[in-house]
Amino acid sequence: MLRKDLLDIHSLTTEDIHALLDQATPFKEIFTRSVKKVPALKGKSVLMLFYEPSTRTHSSFEVAAKRLSADVTNFDVPSSSITKGESVRETIETLQAMRTDYIIVRHGRSGLPAAIAKMTNACVINAGDGAHAHPTQALLDAFTLREIHPDLTGKKILLVGDILHSRVARSTTEIFLLLGAQVAWLAPGSLLPGFPPAGVTCFTDYETAMRWNPCALYLLRVQMERQDVQYFPSLREYHRVYGVTEDRLKRLADAGIHIMHPGPVNRGVELCDAVMDYPLSLINQQVENGIAVRMSVLYSLKPESESAEPAR
Amino acid sequence: MLRKDLLDIHSLTTEDIHALLDQATPFKEIFTRSVKKVPALKGKSVLMLFYEPSTRTHSSFEVAAKRLSADVTNFDVPSSSITKGESVRETIETLQAMRTDYIIVRHGRSGLPAAIAKMTNACVINAGDGAHAHPTQALLDAFTLREIHPDLTGKKILLVGDILHSRVARSTTEIFLLLGAQVAWLAPGSLLPGFPPAGVTCFTDYETAMRWNPCALYLLRVQMERQDVQYFPSLREYHRVYGVTEDRLKRLADAGIHIMHPGPVNRGVELCDAVMDYPLSLINQQVENGIAVRMSVLYSLKPESESAEPAR
Amino acid sequence: MLRKDLLDIHSLTTEDIHALLDQATPFKEIFTRSVKKVPALKGKSVLMLFYEPSTRTHSSFEVAAKRLSADVTNFDVPSSSITKGESVRETIETLQAMRTDYIIVRHGRSGLPAAIAKMTNACVINAGDGAHAHPTQALLDAFTLREIHPDLTGKKILLVGDILHSRVARSTTEIFLLLGAQVAWLAPGSLLPGFPPAGVTCFTDYETAMRWNPCALYLLRVQMERQDVQYFPSLREYHRVYGVTEDRLKRLADAGIHIMHPGPVNRGVELCDAVMDYPLSLINQQVENGIAVRMSVLYSLKPESESAEPAR
Repeated sequence: MLRKDLLDIHSLTTEDIHALLDQATPFKEIFTRSVKKVPALKGKSVLMLFYEPSTRTHSSFEVAAKRLSADVTNFDVPSSSITKGESVRETIETLQAMRTDYIIVRHGRSGLPAAIAKMTNACVINAGDGAHAHPTQALLDAFTLREIHPDLTGKKILLVGDILHSRVARSTTEIFLLLGAQVAWLAPGSLLPGFPPAGVTCFTDYETAMRWNPCALYLLRVQMERQDVQYFPSLREYHRVYGVTEDRLKRLADAGIHIMHPGPVNRGVELCDAVMDYPLSLINQQVENGIAVRMSVLYSLKPESESAEPAR
Repeated sequence: MLRKDLLDIHSLTTEDIHALLDQATPFKEIFTRSVKKVPALKGKSVLMLFYEPSTRTHSSFEVAAKRLSADVTNFDVPSSSITKGESVRETIETLQAMRTDYIIVRHGRSGLPAAIAKMTNACVINAGDGAHAHPTQALLDAFTLREIHPDLTGKKILLVGDILHSRVARSTTEIFLLLGAQVAWLAPGSLLPGFPPAGVTCFTDYETAMRWNPCALYLLRVQMERQDVQYFPSLREYHRVYGVTEDRLKRLADAGIHIMHPGPVNRGVELCDAVMDYPLSLINQQVENGIAVRMSVLYSLKPESESAEPAR
Repeated sequence: MLRKDLLDIHSLTTEDIHALLDQATPFKEIFTRSVKKVPALKGKSVLMLFYEPSTRTHSSFEVAAKRLSADVTNFDVPSSSITKGESVRETIETLQAMRTDYIIVRHGRSGLPAAIAKMTNACVINAGDGAHAHPTQALLDAFTLREIHPDLTGKKILLVGDILHSRVARSTTEIFLLLGAQVAWLAPGSLLPGFPPAGVTCFTDYETAMRWNPCALYLLRVQMERQDVQYFPSLREYHRVYGVTEDRLKRLADAGIHIMHPGPVNRGVELCDAVMDYPLSLINQQVENGIAVRMSVLYSLKPESESAEPAR
């Protein structure tokens, strides 16, 4: 697989995904060494262009790039200029002129990373765009569950929460389907899309969903800030109806069901405090694997011929 | 040329300038290589001391330093302490005590980098001080136009805009005059200095200025924030009278006139949107050359003998 | 000395302290070389987790880590989440999962770094926690005074200022006592703890304190922001009664008394402007030594076996 950008999951083939995940394994092994670094991207420059703040995703990409020996520079977007969509093209031309090798972009507007990818011959990695896609999150989710179930064919994953506004739900559903798993969604009707993709089962009731027998529960973060109307009565009510309460956690343990979450957890909302000590939680493994998978992505992408002129 | 600081253009000789620009060429060639990095400043530390925010200049210096293998640290100036001019000497003594090799400073007060240079034996590079000077901008401007016209003698450059408040206008005018070019200024009378330097022609009317036959138009950024009174009726009016409208852009194309701008462009003010596709625009080359020229500057400066005591 | 964390001074032995200080000397010698860098921590990752902002301490640790060739990443704590103490454990689990080697933490809550150290097998360095401890400050203070007086036994150090709220006072007092020096405190009664440690003399009057014949005056920073009530009438009054005025500075010079301060100085409060040129001031040496001592600390700590699972 030699491509310039990683913008979403659905433009990858199943073979691409397996290749990216397989390649993440040796990168993960580096983490147990004393020197957690390889010279693979020495002399390459990575620009972080985050229009939306994100400590975790930002740090994960930064650490991944540094473990490949790349140089990382933050291109601080003044908050005042974020609203002026006009200036994005100019910013990208600036980064292109700076001969950046990789641009890692997060933006609230869906499709912006794809538009950026066309403007530059740097490699563009989508670190989350609007409600559209978050492909490296999906890759790390797949990598993490594949460590438990090496063959995901037929495995059942239940995504719970704000499916409608979630780029994580979208990309993660896509990757599990491509890998042959079964996906179901559980959410209040107001947070479910009108037309789910083929093969996805929708539930609105927790108990009914659990009778579907998932092997993993994937809790989405409740994003109050992305909702312009209230979709459920209160956080307490959400927790009671859709959250993993202490009682439900005990039953998950009995059934051997793994828990995943993209972080950071709103404790008391998606999950009760006791999840911190839940032995089948994969949340910390997701964090660790995120770095390995992002190293694999950075290592796989190839900028267009460096002597070529930018596509204008 | 072996000097400790780069504070302004007028303390450089024509030979100094040619030496700095000539040396930038091999640095620029590095950018087309796969490994965009040389070990020239390995083990040196560069402190970024920006009292005024600037994404582009900051990133350009940061990338330049990293491509020379220096270590870059931001010395974050708390906005509360910016107003207390008193603390600058203490900050510099701190950086001096940290054995910083290079201090790159931007400050709203003219002359502050020069004052700092006297306090430390680190190399000080002025990244813009008040309305005084912005020498690396001038160097990259000269480098960029020299790529088009290897001999600038007699070449005519027209600077347009807020000359009065612009450190870019000042430094860039100085460098072009030192390199034997002719410089003219075009601005509303309220934005022209009372006493232009010898050899600079002033215009207040666009059409008259164009009859002077410049080979390049250098548009200055309209800096609303630096003006305490309104110098022109409105941005729309500014664009109509002094901006490069679509109609004017067509005539510039016919006459083969290049366009330069220090960035970021206020589109619809200094320049119409169509400039993004103007084939004679040098704006992106300015960005790229900025890194090469800053590498050349960092590489040329020499700190005072490192065992010497700071000048107190 | 092989330990995982540096949390405070009182859990170090006198031998530990001497070992850390002795080892800082060769690191300091690196600063006079052209290449101020050693490969000691190449491939190690240092995460900066600052819940309280601090330009100087932050930069000092950052430069120290980079001079050891470690990779430094800021884990930006959103100010909104600082108040939610709940999230600290999750943050640490995230850093643990990222296989961070060192976590440098500053937090307003006393004891938090110790709690963090138990959650992770990364090395934790306390960069200041509430009014509890600031061990690297104490180490650099001891290192600096030891350069003047190689044997501190019986030497008298007078700490002046807001003892009650100061983690610096606490850690610095502890280290000087462990090294056999004598310590006294000078402050208004309202800023003295009710029960000083054994061996510490308390003064409330400047002239009386000076008759104790200290060899060094250690001025603490007046931290208006940490006080919820006014402990003295005004800053001018503080300066007059407890500050080093110009008159007092002359008498300190005559008596050969050194001045120390953790920085940044509130000039006109703790110290008059003339201190900037006081030949017996050790303030800048404290800054320089801070980097050397922090390199020594980073180099001495050893993470738990890297293949081991996190302590949960």
